[in-house]
Amino acid sequence: MNHLLLGIDIGGTNTALGIVDGEGHVLDSFSVPTRGFPDPKEYVEMLHHEVSRRFSIHENIVLKAIGIGAPSTNFYTGVLAHAPNMEWKGEVPIRDLVEAKFRLPVVVTNDANAAAMGEMKYGAAQAYKDFIMLTLGTGVGSGIVSNGQVVYGHDGFAGELGHVIAVRDGRSCGCGRRGCLETYTSATGVVRTIHEMLSNSVQPSLLRQFNAPTSKDLYDAAVAKDKLALDIFEFTGRILGQTLADICAITSPEAIVFFGGLSRAGDYIFQPTQFYLEQNLLNLYQGKIKLLHSTLPENDAAILGAASLVSEYLS
Amino acid sequence: MNHLLLGIDIGGTNTALGIVDGEGHVLDSFSVPTRGFPDPKEYVEMLHHEVSRRFSIHENIVLKAIGIGAPSTNFYTGVLAHAPNMEWKGEVPIRDLVEAKFRLPVVVTNDANAAAMGEMKYGAAQAYKDFIMLTLGTGVGSGIVSNGQVVYGHDGFAGELGHVIAVRDGRSCGCGRRGCLETYTSATGVVRTIHEMLSNSVQPSLLRQFNAPTSKDLYDAAVAKDKLALDIFEFTGRILGQTLADICAITSPEAIVFFGGLSRAGDYIFQPTQFYLEQNLLNLYQGKIKLLHSTLPENDAAILGAASLVSEYLS
Repeated sequence: MNHLLLGIDIGGTNTALGIVDGEGHVLDSFSVPTRGFPDPKEYVEMLHHEVSRRFSIHENIVLKAIGIGAPSTNFYTGVLAHAPNMEWKGEVPIRDLVEAKFRLPVVVTNDANAAAMGEMKYGAAQAYKDFIMLTLGTGVGSGIVSNGQVVYGHDGFAGELGHVIAVRDGRSCGCGRRGCLETYTSATGVVRTIHEMLSNSVQPSLLRQFNAPTSKDLYDAAVAKDKLALDIFEFTGRILGQTLADICAITSPEAIVFFGGLSRAGDYIFQPTQFYLEQNLLNLYQGKIKLLHSTLPENDAAILGAASLVSEYLS
Repeated sequence: MNHLLLGIDIGGTNTALGIVDGEGHVLDSFSVPTRGFPDPKEYVEMLHHEVSRRFSIHENIVLKAIGIGAPSTNFYTGVLAHAPNMEWKGEVPIRDLVEAKFRLPVVVTNDANAAAMGEMKYGAAQAYKDFIMLTLGTGVGSGIVSNGQVVYGHDGFAGELGHVIAVRDGRSCGCGRRGCLETYTSATGVVRTIHEMLSNSVQPSLLRQFNAPTSKDLYDAAVAKDKLALDIFEFTGRILGQTLADICAITSPEAIVFFGGLSRAGDYIFQPTQFYLEQNLLNLYQGKIKLLHSTLPENDAAILGAASLVSEYLS
């Protein structure tokens, strides 16, 4: 019999599911819509139905445990609560619902913590016990690992680096405060910077040809050596580097692992981030912190992160 | 036989030593000068001699282990390195020296981490597994506890909250950078604020009668309802509260325990700190974080912190 794990990544729009072996190979995966199930119980019924149908083609599979990564989900309580982009309002006891239906051990946590676990178990952070996982996507998510353990905090809500104040009294944030890191260094934050820099200067730029330039347009412009685009990456890297310098003084990580849209810009974002990180670090920490890309295959990273939460059930 | 621990707190000027029982009672303690021993080996010889002499008056004592708290001392390597206020330059392998001389298990860490352990074992943080210890003395030191463990970081240097940037491009700091928290919220930082506020206003103030007002003078003036003195506490609490708000987004502590000179000002510093902490917290964390005073007797706190590092040797 082949003992395997089920990894589930619940997103606002779609849910990705995959079966994962002990070496971190995704043997089979598929995706279903998350929306369309106002009652979370029906959603879990659907998941169970689809998993049974899809994986029944594989012979000799025994699922041992289920790991779930989802936004705003609490490791301690197993509850998905008030996720802004979800159909479900209020609190959904997602762990208990899945456990009851699948009759398997279930571990849940937020998607950024799951990503951190995935990198530690299968990806770029395998050599590290102290690192920070930073996802630069629509928002900025983070998972902090200290001495080999995810830092959850007393309530399970630790690691909101996207809401550390990067610029005091800076840009307004969806959280109701001002100057949060994610208003500058998420994909949407960078788009705000593009708009600001375009309006505050008369500098010619390839970006002026777009009505609504995206972070992809920014990257293309930077590749074409557009000065304003390079300035925008420099500005973004400065905000990111100097904010990370403060965070490093708290947990002293050996590495920071990047994942998500903006990190795909590679050296355009990494070089200024590294420069301003080092420039702003307390001397104790200088020259020690590696900036790394995720090494998980992009399509499977979230499934692997979720599965890594329960990897001990295979050992 | 009475099984006991030896706690040693090495300061720049004096070293405090005490024997501690399993309930956190300091049964006997004394102090010796730290300076006057250019060779650290001679210093450890002296410690051994004094401990033997002093504690030989107690019958039936068996020391089981030694805990040491000292500035700039690394839990992992056991080395005291480049402490700015110490006679010894370079690296002192203090753990190995003490272990070799006393022939007992020795655990060392920096004084703020030892204080955090002491509060968790014997003091204000006994009920908490996730908290921050903040010492507001000549500098600002900190120990961060996550899930019951001190956060050391990969190199043993985590938890330098005093060197988180509180004000971007703010006051120059001894570390060579600008705007570090300790340039505002240490005893010396507050004295800088007094000077600044006195020169930048013509407001009458009791503080104007002093050539070199101290943080004690500030406290006395606040008690006498001096407006400028109250403004200085408000300013200091604002910087402290808003910086702590960011730090809470990283480790989500249940409590922050204060110790040291400035925290003796009680509500004058606590009220504005609490106000600005709450005002600046991400909504997830609001209303959850307790600000506490250390409950360890001030004279014994450092000895208890050091002894707590090895408390498992009594169990």
